[in-house]
Amino acid sequence: MPKKSSLKVIPLGGLNEVGKNLTIFEKDNQMIVVDCGIMFPDDEMLGIDFVIPDFTYVLKNKHKVKAIIITHGHEDHIGGLPFLIKEVKAPIYATKLTLGLIKIKLSNASQKNLNFIEINPRKGIEIGPFFIDFFRVNHSIPDGIGLIFKTDIGNVVHSGDFKIDQSPIDGKVTDFSKIARAGDEGVLALFCDSTNAEETGYTLPERDVGKTLKEKFIRADKRIIVATFASHIHRIQQIMDVAHQMGRKVAISGRSMLKTIRISSELGYLKVPEDTIIPITKIDEMPVKKVVILSTGSQGEPLSALNKMALGEHNRVQIMKGDVVIISASPIPGNEKAISNTINMLINQGADVFYESIAGVHVSGHAAQEEIKMMIGLLKPKYFIPIHGENKHKTQSAVIAEEMGLDKKNIMIAQNGSILKMNTNLCRVSGLLNLKTIYIDGIGTGNVEDMVLKDRRHLSRDGIIVAVLAIDEAGKKIVKDPDFVLKGVIYIDDFKKVVKDCRNIIISSAQRAFDQDITNAATVEQYINENLEKHIFKKVRIRPIVSTKVISV
Amino acid sequence: MPKKSSLKVIPLGGLNEVGKNLTIFEKDNQMIVVDCGIMFPDDEMLGIDFVIPDFTYVLKNKHKVKAIIITHGHEDHIGGLPFLIKEVKAPIYATKLTLGLIKIKLSNASQKNLNFIEINPRKGIEIGPFFIDFFRVNHSIPDGIGLIFKTDIGNVVHSGDFKIDQSPIDGKVTDFSKIARAGDEGVLALFCDSTNAEETGYTLPERDVGKTLKEKFIRADKRIIVATFASHIHRIQQIMDVAHQMGRKVAISGRSMLKTIRISSELGYLKVPEDTIIPITKIDEMPVKKVVILSTGSQGEPLSALNKMALGEHNRVQIMKGDVVIISASPIPGNEKAISNTINMLINQGADVFYESIAGVHVSGHAAQEEIKMMIGLLKPKYFIPIHGENKHKTQSAVIAEEMGLDKKNIMIAQNGSILKMNTNLCRVSGLLNLKTIYIDGIGTGNVEDMVLKDRRHLSRDGIIVAVLAIDEAGKKIVKDPDFVLKGVIYIDDFKKVVKDCRNIIISSAQRAFDQDITNAATVEQYINENLEKHIFKKVRIRPIVSTKVISV
Repeated sequence: MPKKSSLKVIPLGGLNEVGKNLTIFEKDNQMIVVDCGIMFPDDEMLGIDFVIPDFTYVLKNKHKVKAIIITHGHEDHIGGLPFLIKEVKAPIYATKLTLGLIKIKLSNASQKNLNFIEINPRKGIEIGPFFIDFFRVNHSIPDGIGLIFKTDIGNVVHSGDFKIDQSPIDGKVTDFSKIARAGDEGVLALFCDSTNAEETGYTLPERDVGKTLKEKFIRADKRIIVATFASHIHRIQQIMDVAHQMGRKVAISGRSMLKTIRISSELGYLKVPEDTIIPITKIDEMPVKKVVILSTGSQGEPLSALNKMALGEHNRVQIMKGDVVIISASPIPGNEKAISNTINMLINQGADVFYESIAGVHVSGHAAQEEIKMMIGLLKPKYFIPIHGENKHKTQSAVIAEEMGLDKKNIMIAQNGSILKMNTNLCRVSGLLNLKTIYIDGIGTGNVEDMVLKDRRHLSRDGIIVAVLAIDEAGKKIVKDPDFVLKGVIYIDDFKKVVKDCRNIIISSAQRAFDQDITNAATVEQYINENLEKHIFKKVRIRPIVSTKVISV
Repeated sequence: MPKKSSLKVIPLGGLNEVGKNLTIFEKDNQMIVVDCGIMFPDDEMLGIDFVIPDFTYVLKNKHKVKAIIITHGHEDHIGGLPFLIKEVKAPIYATKLTLGLIKIKLSNASQKNLNFIEINPRKGIEIGPFFIDFFRVNHSIPDGIGLIFKTDIGNVVHSGDFKIDQSPIDGKVTDFSKIARAGDEGVLALFCDSTNAEETGYTLPERDVGKTLKEKFIRADKRIIVATFASHIHRIQQIMDVAHQMGRKVAISGRSMLKTIRISSELGYLKVPEDTIIPITKIDEMPVKKVVILSTGSQGEPLSALNKMALGEHNRVQIMKGDVVIISASPIPGNEKAISNTINMLINQGADVFYESIAGVHVSGHAAQEEIKMMIGLLKPKYFIPIHGENKHKTQSAVIAEEMGLDKKNIMIAQNGSILKMNTNLCRVSGLLNLKTIYIDGIGTGNVEDMVLKDRRHLSRDGIIVAVLAIDEAGKKIVKDPDFVLKGVIYIDDFKKVVKDCRNIIISSAQRAFDQDITNAATVEQYINENLEKHIFKKVRIRPIVSTKVISV
């Protein structure tokens, strides 16, 4: 019997953080890319739009890529595609709704002749050495799937993002039968969504939110404004249904919300009751008791519809006393303060605001501990690799796997770039790719270097002083007294004195340089800079960026 | 009977946010200032150290100030004192521990001859038209009090920060008897801590944390590192006690922790078991099973001891595999992400980390809903004013007061600067002071203007381009080609081309200005700036700050 080739699984993202998910499956020199997402910037990434995975390894091997498979349509799974498909020509496989959302995303991409292949989750597909079977999962967007890679060395399962909902809004339950069958065949390794591994018990069913929404709708006697994720089609379905039952019309605010409602209606995923949607321009003609406004901004995003309402800057919706605002979402880590600010401003404008911590107006789309256990119990994997989470989530997921009886040494806390090499009955980390953080800013074609970010952090703390001085190199003299540009620097009485001192320091530094026969502009600049920085810190205990330009005329 | 004078209560801080608490009580031209705290900056306040209340009204009336009373020793109640006492000469009243902490804070202040008066919570004091009685409360620092202002128009109660703990570590329970007595006499208005008004039920007792800590200590077979608030003396007491019981020694890391442990031991608030504390320099000589490191950094603060350990940059403590790290605190809103980052880094270094969401290693120091109800029930105030909270907390507190039977129109959601005017049986908002946000940065004597903050935000997003050009005004010509300072600006291939374009734009703009006989440097600068900004945005869709310096030589 010939030796079986090994399988390499390399997660490029999604393992050190929540976001920019991308996992490579490689066997016999053929490669499948699973998901290609973005990550939203944290507080330290000043001015950054988002982060994409470091594709270098994929690009180096781009001739090997046979397929890009997307598990569902969230930004952290599809947002990086415009960057990947510029270089990698491979068919994109996804379920119907996911494909619809991908097509919108790629409609601006320069790339032509893209090959989209719709996945029917009931039917597996063969790609090179892989037979890939799919199983439906529940999540906070419809049409999500998990993947079973059936290979000659065993089954390897990728859970996708999942929760287990016994009565989902679209009636499509998690496909226990397929999962159980894979488990019976034997599973070498499970890559398992661990986003919610800190939560005990089970994640509540989506339908529970519908019940709470209905209670809130029954009590409201003014307008109702509901903010949620634009892609949360089942939530939107429930809002539409409750509005319809209560005889209210729904106006939509926010571009992404309009876009996903259009595409998911066209594809049959959202069933808007007849005559329910009205243009936002019509809301002022309606009795307040008949109006629902469905809006973006559930994360307190500065430019979102809800935040504009909170600021009193929305061009169509002025918050009125007694408006009921329901924030049907939970904070993505890092957004807590922004959401609180939005809530506080809405209350200040007279709205009654309901949000997660005081009202059951949201449930998660990710599996809690008991659901992770169920997935492990059905699949009985030999190796367990927590994915989609920070270290702390992966650690909790590992604790669960151990409780489920897995051998501790077979639970692998991997990092982005880990090369997991698998053979029959065996999985080990055989290497680590050196990955960079790829920041996207501005027009998005270029990336922001760490140096630029470091400067931005510095600028944001203490500001910048640019000093300008014209000298006569030959005559060794100052032609024009120094001038300054100051931005973001504290400017107080004391500091005015500091600026005057700075002037003197520049002049004396330049003079001293001349005295030593230093006339080269760059050297004089350096000389002045050092003295200036020292002086400013000594006087006012701040460290702005100091940059001197000496012009030799 | 002569008409009784009215009482004005003016909160200058603590009502629009959590932090910078300060409330003025004014009657018969005599004024008492209660608390004087700082607020920590939010994400938008780039480079700011902290925010203090706008004292303008107090300073204008400084001759009226008869007393500064501090309810407890937390920074959001004492941190603003160094700024206030520069101008206001009044005795500072506080309980023993609170005074100890204040004295440390003011030890660097230039102000001499400060008058400190120790409060004995059992004995009220008379100051001008007020008889002020005190009642002990429980909180996350010992020696906290609430205040009862007994005046000829009625009793007005300020709760301080409180929770109700039936079995506090120091045995000093909330003084129900005094509170009930005030309630029996009749209470005109209650200013009530609402920080935790979103939490249902009761806040758990501090002792519960001790039990969980003990469980963790029993299981640990390596070093234990516990991070908590430096001022949480009862928590520190429990850590010391458990360490002692388990035969471990405690080393302390973090300047503020060392400071509060010293002062609270000296004053008898912390009872360190004999031979329990060891210098941090000795930990490497001890068996790992014998070591506890008590550390600052429970909020993920960048320069804290715990964060340095997480980064591998602590000069004494290198995290070892199996070290147990217990973060005995909950995130202050806005710090969630920073704490997560610290946790993830610690896990990455091999530590087993326990924190609030997965282990009961912290309880709050503020009253939850049932405790707020108890306070209202005992005091039976006619008017209810929620304090210490954002709008959303105040709103929840108001809901509770209404449930307790208070008249809705007597529940007052006030803002910072609201002038609450009270007469016998009456309270109304009679005005609003126009308050500014006072930012403290650098050496702290000056304040950062909004303009500076706006610049910092702008710099942090897109960076800055300073262009420098020397011209000959008389000769109407460019003496030296333009030069640039770029900081925080994306710098990619495309952008290099943009810089080249910019050079051309500057030259042609200057030339066009000369052609129109514009040679004045400032006007030429403006002319160039406008063209440059437009061009850069058109080409790369970013808006850095653009500033041109034209030097006329």
